[in-house]
Amino acid sequence: MRSLLIAFVFFVALPSFAQQPLLDLMPMPTTIQLGTGWMTIDAAFSVGISGNSDPRLEGSVERFLTQLRRQTGMPLLLLKVTEASQAKLQVEASRSNQPVQELGEDESYRLEISAGGAKLSAATVLGAMRGFETFLQLVETTPQGFAVPALTIVARPRFAGRGLLIDVARHFMPPDVMRRNLDGMAALKLNVLHWHLSDNQGFRVESKRFPKLTSMGSDGLYYTQEEVRELIAYAAERGIRVVPEFDMPGHSTAWFVGYPELASAPGPYQIERKWGIFDPAMDPTEEQTYRFLDKLIGEMAELFPDQYFHIGGDEVNGKQWDLNPKIQAFLRAHRLKSNQDLQAYFNQRVEKLVSKHGKIMVGWDEILQPDLPKNIVVQSWRGQDSLAQAAKQGYRGLLSYGYYLDLMWPAARHYAVDPMADGAASLSPQEAERILGGEACMWSEYVSPENIDSRIWPRMAAIAERLWSPASVTDVDSMYQRMEATSQWLDWLGLTHNSGYSPMLRRIAGSDQISSLRTLADLLEPVKDYTREETAPVVPTSLVPLDRLIDAARPESATGRKFGTMVDALLAGHASAPEKQQVREMLTLWRDNQASLQGLEKQSFLLEEVVPASENLTRVATAGLEALDYIDRGARPEEAWKTQTLALLDNAGKQQAQLLLVIVPSVEKLVEAAAGGNTAMSSR
Amino acid sequence: MRSLLIAFVFFVALPSFAQQPLLDLMPMPTTIQLGTGWMTIDAAFSVGISGNSDPRLEGSVERFLTQLRRQTGMPLLLLKVTEASQAKLQVEASRSNQPVQELGEDESYRLEISAGGAKLSAATVLGAMRGFETFLQLVETTPQGFAVPALTIVARPRFAGRGLLIDVARHFMPPDVMRRNLDGMAALKLNVLHWHLSDNQGFRVESKRFPKLTSMGSDGLYYTQEEVRELIAYAAERGIRVVPEFDMPGHSTAWFVGYPELASAPGPYQIERKWGIFDPAMDPTEEQTYRFLDKLIGEMAELFPDQYFHIGGDEVNGKQWDLNPKIQAFLRAHRLKSNQDLQAYFNQRVEKLVSKHGKIMVGWDEILQPDLPKNIVVQSWRGQDSLAQAAKQGYRGLLSYGYYLDLMWPAARHYAVDPMADGAASLSPQEAERILGGEACMWSEYVSPENIDSRIWPRMAAIAERLWSPASVTDVDSMYQRMEATSQWLDWLGLTHNSGYSPMLRRIAGSDQISSLRTLADLLEPVKDYTREETAPVVPTSLVPLDRLIDAARPESATGRKFGTMVDALLAGHASAPEKQQVREMLTLWRDNQASLQGLEKQSFLLEEVVPASENLTRVATAGLEALDYIDRGARPEEAWKTQTLALLDNAGKQQAQLLLVIVPSVEKLVEAAAGGNTAMSSR
Repeated sequence: MRSLLIAFVFFVALPSFAQQPLLDLMPMPTTIQLGTGWMTIDAAFSVGISGNSDPRLEGSVERFLTQLRRQTGMPLLLLKVTEASQAKLQVEASRSNQPVQELGEDESYRLEISAGGAKLSAATVLGAMRGFETFLQLVETTPQGFAVPALTIVARPRFAGRGLLIDVARHFMPPDVMRRNLDGMAALKLNVLHWHLSDNQGFRVESKRFPKLTSMGSDGLYYTQEEVRELIAYAAERGIRVVPEFDMPGHSTAWFVGYPELASAPGPYQIERKWGIFDPAMDPTEEQTYRFLDKLIGEMAELFPDQYFHIGGDEVNGKQWDLNPKIQAFLRAHRLKSNQDLQAYFNQRVEKLVSKHGKIMVGWDEILQPDLPKNIVVQSWRGQDSLAQAAKQGYRGLLSYGYYLDLMWPAARHYAVDPMADGAASLSPQEAERILGGEACMWSEYVSPENIDSRIWPRMAAIAERLWSPASVTDVDSMYQRMEATSQWLDWLGLTHNSGYSPMLRRIAGSDQISSLRTLADLLEPVKDYTREETAPVVPTSLVPLDRLIDAARPESATGRKFGTMVDALLAGHASAPEKQQVREMLTLWRDNQASLQGLEKQSFLLEEVVPASENLTRVATAGLEALDYIDRGARPEEAWKTQTLALLDNAGKQQAQLLLVIVPSVEKLVEAAAGGNTAMSSR
Repeated sequence: MRSLLIAFVFFVALPSFAQQPLLDLMPMPTTIQLGTGWMTIDAAFSVGISGNSDPRLEGSVERFLTQLRRQTGMPLLLLKVTEASQAKLQVEASRSNQPVQELGEDESYRLEISAGGAKLSAATVLGAMRGFETFLQLVETTPQGFAVPALTIVARPRFAGRGLLIDVARHFMPPDVMRRNLDGMAALKLNVLHWHLSDNQGFRVESKRFPKLTSMGSDGLYYTQEEVRELIAYAAERGIRVVPEFDMPGHSTAWFVGYPELASAPGPYQIERKWGIFDPAMDPTEEQTYRFLDKLIGEMAELFPDQYFHIGGDEVNGKQWDLNPKIQAFLRAHRLKSNQDLQAYFNQRVEKLVSKHGKIMVGWDEILQPDLPKNIVVQSWRGQDSLAQAAKQGYRGLLSYGYYLDLMWPAARHYAVDPMADGAASLSPQEAERILGGEACMWSEYVSPENIDSRIWPRMAAIAERLWSPASVTDVDSMYQRMEATSQWLDWLGLTHNSGYSPMLRRIAGSDQISSLRTLADLLEPVKDYTREETAPVVPTSLVPLDRLIDAARPESATGRKFGTMVDALLAGHASAPEKQQVREMLTLWRDNQASLQGLEKQSFLLEEVVPASENLTRVATAGLEALDYIDRGARPEEAWKTQTLALLDNAGKQQAQLLLVIVPSVEKLVEAAAGGNTAMSSR
């Protein structure tokens, strides 16, 4: 799966260009060799399939042309499919893929572009799809027209499994949300949608055999089987497998609303509205549980064509089992020492059902118990050590630890997580082969159809690169530059991570005049990890609207990051006079922002909680300007100023309305530098 | 149809509020009476249907709740349909509408909101739909939460026919584009989509009887019958009739590609790529023409359920008829004196076919010839006089003159066009009844799926108000304020008139750094009327991409309009010191803009043509600042300065890259005032 031996050659030689190509590629390919000149993309552009063809390849050519028209504004009339010999871009895919896409199919491609024409060659149609996305990322507006630079790219994925979990149980995501995110996944060369379809808060797929699963367990928010089939087909056209997850024996309250007999306590049950880990769990000691699961898994195994079937298996707290005398008797009778043993027994039974229906079982770390067949796959939220342990026992695994998008980490932190690090670094080559890749997780407690795109994108691109590109691709600055370009590129697909920002801010402001609110929001990030839950002003449930500033604010502030870079340059003495002036102007703008926001906050209940953050911005920016003044004058401030200011910053660094003011650490650096009497900066 | 007698009462008394409601309603209802307090919209909000119900009403309740969730960010779980007695909003529609919506059905409604609850009453389901849109426009973010103000609104449309023509022949508009624009139409209470489905450049509907119409005449860009049915159903659910137009005997080159035997000259024919009026026309003297039309109209009459059927009938230049000896012989034999007479003959024959298939014929001004039955409807691109003339002869009519969105007029100019003005003002009440309303026209020579929304919206809202609201509603400032709010409101429907702007500018810039390009673009408007065509640098065709700045720039510059208002206030001595300062700051920003744009223009072929406009902006803003200085100092400039500066402005007022710099007239005023030594302004 991995290709550690492939050298990463950025470019061999840089010939002189009228314009230097930007190469905002993401994920970075294995090798790039720049050529000379550009191939223009104009009305005469065409694509031709040479050699073997199939409907999936033809479909991907059409989608490629549609996207190329969007990017260039070309009329629907233009950009044609022609004979390969006459085409500007020739595509060759040696063979078709499996009718149902399988794990580990060849996705490599080679893209050669010269001024006169281009050729995309791949072993399979899947590889051609990946190559088309690269071609699209290369399109630039140049002085001579739209064009792609002459170059040769060779690429193959480092890992065979590159996925995204979307949790549609906590908040349901209608089909259009799924479709546009599948488009985004395909653009980033991801190949697995892990569809978290059931949990305590809802069962989201129509079952013909057990209709009460949705009629009583979904609030009417579920996919019909027809919709599921359409979405699977949509994903398949884009080279994305769809692995369904039906979480069991825990995380299953929603099942019990219609079918309480499955649970380990009598019920009745209601759909869970809160978030967290709950007591209800299936009764592993009842044969009727397995008869039910046999039928349901059978039905779903038919609906979902993928080879893999995810049974969840995480976070069973065992309380219902402890309290049920019949279950306790079963433990004794079967010499099961713990609830863990009971779950292992359950997993074995379920694995047989999954296997009977022709599928390979996948589950979270907890399923890893002896006596399960070696073909199952473990998905680890625990980390590389857990994964390595499984690999040593002969089990294949996927890493999700470090890729939880709901924790609001900066992209760089996800980017630094390598499936082959820590415990996995010392695996034998054979064991290492068992690490299939990774999956980012978009748990949806605090995510709605409106803002899910902004929680997935663009940070997902950093994880996609980690899973596709050579391990040596680790330059964070380069990643951020390309991620920003990728973010804008994704706009063409109709993803709303950028376009949804202003409407949400307008709603919060209760006004169309949002420039000062935007200035503030651009500098705020939602609190990290599980702090939102832990510090919630009211108990968070599925009934609470996600329309606060924390829901609009971006997980990572680009403005904050850039300011940080500028301050670092300034303090290192690398900033030019205009750059120093820019830092001052930014701080001045921020200092004065509260004045213009002041009118708005009285108009809107959603702005009220933001006032302290806005006041903090003024204080922090003022402190920053004072520090700059000291630095510029080369004067050392009173010790009292330093103490007071750092205390002020310490306070401003705390969350307000569950939001963090991201410039605080950089201003702290300025204050420290000013107080340290560091006047090196003033010399430039 | 019209309700000229209904008084327009803005509000009777204004009780004291914590917050004064904005009432950004558009179109303005017939009467509004403000009450006391607000009704909050929170998780407990619900809607109940009291009395008569039908699926269309239930559907509109669901769509209303969906939109309310979007506007408030409420979860999909919330906002329910309940028993009427328990509902916060009770809806009552006394009767269902016709199975196929008809012209003139009652659309009136009454909306009463008090702090405790709301009631929407309407004679029909259609009226309820219109009332729901008003309710949605009333939703505000207040200090206490989302809320609607207590009030009573009574509304009924002034005209029964309020339409929008979308030309899908010149540029095809895929179903999703149609759907989102139908959403926008419903939001503005429009009730007719006039679908211009065929023209020289394409035949856009699948015909099972004559498949070559699309296989040879559409470039593969057409609606299947299934898609047509879906779009008609989509429109019907929103209270919008769909009137198809198949333009004949001219504007029909695309028909002749597959069926040259219909034409008046032998062919072969190709799909027309250029814009304008062309020679090909059907042969009105051949019986096979009518046999063909009989079958086609029959097929289409079944596909399109509306009572009305548009046959176009405009702009036949008669050249093919003049050159065809057989046709000339026919004229002599039938004592037809002119091509006009021949077309009248054709229209009579076609009218019989339309009528035979159960429809009422509609056509453009040109069809108005004696001997057509009185039930036909004339759509006038010529004006109110033409319409009045028809009305006097007993024909009903619709105004389109003055409502051509492709001419890039400001909203105020469309707003000033009243169907009952000019010749129509002197009609007898009975004749006046024959003026059914109006239809805006979105001809699509210079419109693509990407930018059509920005050409229709928000200006269409001004026309929608003209056609719905009482004739006395004419305050232009109020209209603009409400139109701007409406524009933002429409964002929730997924219309792209706002969200599409930045991506287009980024493409033009070939960069993500577009702030200076945006500053410039915000001050540029496309040239007006038919100037684009007349001054085109290359022959415009359907093969030319619409990706220039003229295609991204908004038809009307809001920034330019606001600047104009501020300058007028300043010159009238009404501007405060901060307002005067703001004018200065705007001009300073604009003067310096070219400096920051300078880097970009070398990177992109699409920016090249914009350079002179950018340079003009610097010159014009500099002139404005000079004028301000003179005014502030109370000093009279040299005559030479005035002469030179006005010459400069005269030059800068000319189009550059087919774009107009909108601030020139206001700066001219400043210069004139400065040169006139008018120093009154400096006293405040």
